[in-house]
Amino acid sequence: MTDLRAQPLTAAAFAPFGEVIETGGPFVTINEGACRRYTDLARFDIVDGRHGLSLFAAEIRALPYECGLLERHPLGSQCFIPMQGARFLIIVAPDEGGAPGTPVAFVAEDHQSVNIARNTWHGVLCPIAGSGLFAVIDRIGEGGNLEEHRLGRPIRVTA
Amino acid sequence: MTDLRAQPLTAAAFAPFGEVIETGGPFVTINEGACRRYTDLARFDIVDGRHGLSLFAAEIRALPYECGLLERHPLGSQCFIPMQGARFLIIVAPDEGGAPGTPVAFVAEDHQSVNIARNTWHGVLCPIAGSGLFAVIDRIGEGGNLEEHRLGRPIRVTA
Repeated sequence: MTDLRAQPLTAAAFAPFGEVIETGGPFVTINEGACRRYTDLARFDIVDGRHGLSLFAAEIRALPYECGLLERHPLGSQCFIPMQGARFLIIVAPDEGGAPGTPVAFVAEDHQSVNIARNTWHGVLCPIAGSGLFAVIDRIGEGGNLEEHRLGRPIRVTA
Repeated sequence: MTDLRAQPLTAAAFAPFGEVIETGGPFVTINEGACRRYTDLARFDIVDGRHGLSLFAAEIRALPYECGLLERHPLGSQCFIPMQGARFLIIVAPDEGGAPGTPVAFVAEDHQSVNIARNTWHGVLCPIAGSGLFAVIDRIGEGGNLEEHRLGRPIRVTA
């Protein structure tokens, strides 16, 4: 078992793995001043299929969280949007010759969504506080879009 | 001024205007039993552009809410996902010869998202409690995608 401490989720640190969707950048004001619009914050990357919206209702996990399996989706990015307030772990890893390299863990707050880039190794959805309800934008289509890799050495994540 | 009482948001009542995205229907269990996936709940309808994810940070409005303007988007559906917990009003109207017919109002709870169908008359994003932060999936592209109609007789909505 390898211990891993999750770091706060920032766009810069997460950049090799996808995008953090959050306010803070440029916006336009719409609706007669009543709303700020931060436009086009994720790169949807859907191959040979279409964009779909699904809901995931996930169990809240306890810390430390043990992770023994990473997965990736060769045909599409996957975007997770917490509804109702949640903190959630995101475990990702660079690819090294078709298998996950050293994992990295982040903690997202409820004002943050993430878009995991196509073909990026990641752990399953892992809320640690609040609601387990997420809206998910990913690929809908035929064909194999799931690759799994069981870690030789599981990780134990704290936040 | 016409008074209008918002009704609870249900898929059946909202069907003429788009989809309600909520749990309750069929699901598959994923992640070794830790997550229920409700797949493909919205019909994204994007013409001559691409799907984009934006954030809207909207003011919380007081009730009764006065609405004098409806709009529609001829080139794309628009999906609103509340983050961090929100209740929000959705005001929609059928089309009657290129102008809005009689408006209908709904109140969505924080476990519900809505996808407003392409070219459907609707009011602007209107949270009435909780957070004003929403993830929005709509069309990114060139060309005119906004049509506005000022109501001859404004409406005053209660919930």
